[in-house]
Amino acid sequence: MMITLDQTAEFLKSKDNFMILSHGHPDGDTLGAAFALKAALNKIGKKAEVCCSDTMPSKFSYIGQTVDEFEYSTLVAVDVADTKLLGKAFEAKYADKIELCIDHHGSNRAFAERTLLDADAAAACEIILSVIRKLGVEIDRHIADCIFTGLTTDTGCFRYSNVTPTTLRMAADMVECGARNVEINTAMFETKTKTYVALEKLAMASMKMYLDDKLAFITITQDMFRQSGSDESEVDAIASLPRQIEGVVVGVTMREKPDGTFKVSMRSHAPVDVSKICAMMGGGGHPQAAGCQLEIPVDEATQRIIECVKLGLE
Amino acid sequence: MMITLDQTAEFLKSKDNFMILSHGHPDGDTLGAAFALKAALNKIGKKAEVCCSDTMPSKFSYIGQTVDEFEYSTLVAVDVADTKLLGKAFEAKYADKIELCIDHHGSNRAFAERTLLDADAAAACEIILSVIRKLGVEIDRHIADCIFTGLTTDTGCFRYSNVTPTTLRMAADMVECGARNVEINTAMFETKTKTYVALEKLAMASMKMYLDDKLAFITITQDMFRQSGSDESEVDAIASLPRQIEGVVVGVTMREKPDGTFKVSMRSHAPVDVSKICAMMGGGGHPQAAGCQLEIPVDEATQRIIECVKLGLE
Repeated sequence: MMITLDQTAEFLKSKDNFMILSHGHPDGDTLGAAFALKAALNKIGKKAEVCCSDTMPSKFSYIGQTVDEFEYSTLVAVDVADTKLLGKAFEAKYADKIELCIDHHGSNRAFAERTLLDADAAAACEIILSVIRKLGVEIDRHIADCIFTGLTTDTGCFRYSNVTPTTLRMAADMVECGARNVEINTAMFETKTKTYVALEKLAMASMKMYLDDKLAFITITQDMFRQSGSDESEVDAIASLPRQIEGVVVGVTMREKPDGTFKVSMRSHAPVDVSKICAMMGGGGHPQAAGCQLEIPVDEATQRIIECVKLGLE
Repeated sequence: MMITLDQTAEFLKSKDNFMILSHGHPDGDTLGAAFALKAALNKIGKKAEVCCSDTMPSKFSYIGQTVDEFEYSTLVAVDVADTKLLGKAFEAKYADKIELCIDHHGSNRAFAERTLLDADAAAACEIILSVIRKLGVEIDRHIADCIFTGLTTDTGCFRYSNVTPTTLRMAADMVECGARNVEINTAMFETKTKTYVALEKLAMASMKMYLDDKLAFITITQDMFRQSGSDESEVDAIASLPRQIEGVVVGVTMREKPDGTFKVSMRSHAPVDVSKICAMMGGGGHPQAAGCQLEIPVDEATQRIIECVKLGLE
């Protein structure tokens, strides 16, 4: 059942002992939303803890710590579109017990007993802020840090097309309430690990240009992961680099997996639709960010991708 | 004489044929402010043009074109703290004729007959927006693009410490008025020239770590400029890279000039004050961004910088 903001606030006021679930491989928005909600519930005298199937990345430690166990009586999920996203163990344990889900994904599968959904919100934190205001809780510095973290991380520091005037006004309000916006943005967007820097160097050195320089192509081998000390978790940031080059329309980042097959990340500038290009190779995704898997040797994979991109540019 | 917003609006309404001067080596804020003011003056039936001593970078062409000559009767400067910043030719021609200056630099030398100054504004465009509102002009998409450009470029896409709730609220208003925020941010922050990419690769390959990895040190030689096809104008973006590495406190980018001497750019994380470190070598600047010049051989220069940074870290 879909519910309103008022109904959400009433539900939260009527219950206690909340276990708040973030999605697995947690990011700034799911964690910011979960910890902001926990803090607000604590402020109205409720017990609440945040749980996640995966360990929190240490860069988010300023917004709180998850717990492993909690004697809950009410189960809430935030920024979770599908129970699969809770992570396997949590899905098995909690999937059919979630009483409330607060989410901003249009694809939300309405798995919870009640769902507060706003698909126009750039971040789950936008909706959580509205919930907190509805609860009548004052926004302190900690809540402001949590909400700001979600707003800025889910919009790439206010750069993505999901940003609305509401997003920016909420960010303004959070700065006014004491959010450490400069420190948070520095930690999220201006900090690179040494292993990432080493991998980026190798990746950029591998870059080749094709199709009149409209296609920039990075290949990351298992050997590069070994040399740099980096791993797959640091590849996402690299995938955005080839498209940044002036004149490039499609950026491809192909990485070798331990079994020798390849995972391909493709980015484009509109109107080129890389979800269609990746579909030619059995993959899919969004128009400007898609991917596919290839189980052929590296030279053949490269050739195949170039041919498909060529078709996609026609 | 310092004047108020009301007095500024009255002055603009009482005059006509405005020549609006940006500062030399124009950036997004001085150009955004100048073209927004021109558009607003045009809308209330006044003639106005924008002039600059230097050619506009092509990436700003969406906000207008400067003219070389204009039969003006009223001379206005925007985002200009000192007549020196107009560029040599313009300084000689116009310095003592400027009737109004609208600026946000606390260091403004009050060279104009009247000055509207707000040193708390993150961008000159914040003040220009207030002026335009005071003139009663409706913000159309073009004005919104101009103002948004100034807001985002002078704050590094809302990352620098000069950002205030007002900055973010004005950005929200501009998006609401149709500013192409995504396209503008992509053009300003997500686009790299091929020559820049080539230079960045060479620069990153040159990077060495010192002082327990607290100092990251990039050296750019004349040979690297030749190899990459890049030039000095593209070094600024590189200077911010070494400080981004986890654990690095001071980032140094030393570039060789055609005469074989070196220009040093230094960046730090607070509380380390690189203006003091650069002062040891005859330079200066801001606490987290400073520079100096060295006229000694490269190895000696490197050694000297490491020693001074070491003292600065103590």
